[in-house]
Amino acid sequence: MNAPIKIEDLEVGYDVPAIAGMRESEIQTPCLILDLDALERNIARMGDWAREHGVRHRVHGKMHKSVDVALLQERLGGACGVCCQKVSEAEVFARGGIRDVLVSNQVRDPAKIDRLARIPQLGARTICCVDDLANVADLSAAALRHGTQIECLVEIDCGAGRCGVNDTPSVLAIAKALDEAPGLKFSGIQAYQGAMQHMEKYGDRKAKIDIAIEMVCDAVDALAAEGLECDIVGGGGTGSYHFEGTSGVYNELQCGSYAFMDADYGRILDKDGNRIDRGEWENALFILTSVMSHAKADKAICDAGLKAQSVDSGLPVVFGRDDVEYVKCSDEHGVIDDPRGVLEVNDKLRLVPGHCDPTCNVHDWYVGVRGGEVEAVWPVSARGKAY
Amino acid sequence: MNAPIKIEDLEVGYDVPAIAGMRESEIQTPCLILDLDALERNIARMGDWAREHGVRHRVHGKMHKSVDVALLQERLGGACGVCCQKVSEAEVFARGGIRDVLVSNQVRDPAKIDRLARIPQLGARTICCVDDLANVADLSAAALRHGTQIECLVEIDCGAGRCGVNDTPSVLAIAKALDEAPGLKFSGIQAYQGAMQHMEKYGDRKAKIDIAIEMVCDAVDALAAEGLECDIVGGGGTGSYHFEGTSGVYNELQCGSYAFMDADYGRILDKDGNRIDRGEWENALFILTSVMSHAKADKAICDAGLKAQSVDSGLPVVFGRDDVEYVKCSDEHGVIDDPRGVLEVNDKLRLVPGHCDPTCNVHDWYVGVRGGEVEAVWPVSARGKAY
Repeated sequence: MNAPIKIEDLEVGYDVPAIAGMRESEIQTPCLILDLDALERNIARMGDWAREHGVRHRVHGKMHKSVDVALLQERLGGACGVCCQKVSEAEVFARGGIRDVLVSNQVRDPAKIDRLARIPQLGARTICCVDDLANVADLSAAALRHGTQIECLVEIDCGAGRCGVNDTPSVLAIAKALDEAPGLKFSGIQAYQGAMQHMEKYGDRKAKIDIAIEMVCDAVDALAAEGLECDIVGGGGTGSYHFEGTSGVYNELQCGSYAFMDADYGRILDKDGNRIDRGEWENALFILTSVMSHAKADKAICDAGLKAQSVDSGLPVVFGRDDVEYVKCSDEHGVIDDPRGVLEVNDKLRLVPGHCDPTCNVHDWYVGVRGGEVEAVWPVSARGKAY
Repeated sequence: MNAPIKIEDLEVGYDVPAIAGMRESEIQTPCLILDLDALERNIARMGDWAREHGVRHRVHGKMHKSVDVALLQERLGGACGVCCQKVSEAEVFARGGIRDVLVSNQVRDPAKIDRLARIPQLGARTICCVDDLANVADLSAAALRHGTQIECLVEIDCGAGRCGVNDTPSVLAIAKALDEAPGLKFSGIQAYQGAMQHMEKYGDRKAKIDIAIEMVCDAVDALAAEGLECDIVGGGGTGSYHFEGTSGVYNELQCGSYAFMDADYGRILDKDGNRIDRGEWENALFILTSVMSHAKADKAICDAGLKAQSVDSGLPVVFGRDDVEYVKCSDEHGVIDDPRGVLEVNDKLRLVPGHCDPTCNVHDWYVGVRGGEVEAVWPVSARGKAY
């Protein structure tokens, strides 16, 4: 394990984009900034919703990859724990003090299985997903080897077309094997429908989750008939949590993007036909960028390109401005249409990234701002923890 | 400055994907691997070409962000130095022992200008680009403040539509101001045509560079008439270096991707109509990925998604296989069409990334392999150095 970062060794502009106490105007760009007021309101709002509807919220740490944000979600949003997608991310969260960690994914590589089985020794309840009978013996052997317990959810592919089994007999067969395997505990079902979260219309999203709920109910009933209870029936994202959360069968939500928001999620519509970033959630995450060339009258070139964001879900949107538009992205540059020439060199702009998860993953730091001042500089703790 | 990384503190799977001496099959995925034989052949081939054509090669370090690769390009490819796009990258290369560093970009922020002016104190010749008269006084003041010299190239926008001026009178005005500014030295012209590098047809690419060469010749002649000589006339990329390198006016090439290759560059055609990754250059960079779920007979799910690559220029290609195809990418998963069910869980595949530069920027390490064994594990030294 690496030695902890010593703040006094960090150099602004080389190691970190800012230090606490700086004015926002002094932050080195491009970097990620968090509007802490907006972030805290988003976290509290989702926490309130889950509590009011009698479901737990296991926040998705794969979105922000930050121990600091996860701890805030526990404190302000009543999160019951964290889910993440990689064993190396789970290690980061467990080492950072999260006591309940789900790897909402398959763990198949022998070395990864061995590391997963050691996470309980860090003091964290450790859960993973299984979609193949052949995985059960390997997980069991690792837990026995380390004298730990791995809790397991059977993953149902309820429409995402990725991992997971898609019929109840397969769920039953794996659940029974887990129930009988020493070192393991069958703890329920993972059923996240990832393919519908970004559908624009509320009704279209609901129709997809109705199918998922039907599959999950069928599996839960069949398991109960065999005496297998589901401690956890988990799923739900920012685009669907209303549906799982009121289904009566899901008991744990797994939302991630709600906390930060992004341009692609922001465009989807709520049940009243309003964009979800105009009331339901606030933009809390921005790429702060500076204009670094304006040699052509109608084009400003900014310093945030492909290495400051992921454009897989579209270009970023300039926040709070309709007079300028981010129109093109190359490795280190963004081209901003500035038809009236209102921007000047060194002007700073807040960009709402197209897709928050992979954008956060290219940055090493979050700069938390409040009232025009830098309040916190948090490492993206699990950045690059892909393996 | 952070303390250097101690290899003995690193944990395989958590901090690093592999250690030297491991078999390739033991590498933790997803991660970047370099075929060292192919890499060395690419570097030597480009070095030979530049030498034979009497031009220098200032390799583009922004592609790999690696001190180790840059030093290899000096040793095996006769590189005269490095170019990069950010002051923080230049600091990494200068600290790592590169003695001649060009920031092939504008530097406008006061804090960045100050850091740039201190790079010569690390022992490196320090060069940057200028496209605005208003920048000259700031650069000059910083160089005087630190008792250093910043060499400056006037940047011409020869078709990329980003930074740079686009007429000779503007070049002359900035060059004269640089020539007269204490602490600065006018050193020539930067003219990289970034917008044509990926055009498929050789003739189409040549036509675009012919325009660039004409602009550059006009500027160089006008400067000479004023007694201003260009030490450096720099530009050229993997898709165009033949043209600049034989133009008689460019004297420094700035290629990056040739060393690693990627799927998008690989598709462009050479003068004989052959793909450039089928003879001119070899694929040396791969994302190593593992199959982690195969719950559906015709679909394998692998562990390399958006957090292991940038898909801005298309999906990755499975190297050396025409029986399976990477067809979909989500945050942590790739979906691989496997119509005949030939893949098994834990099988490893080499993916050629769509676009090498931003893909390298999401990883912390290069794993260098030769003969099925891990020979080197190099940090992506300037990863995340965006500010």
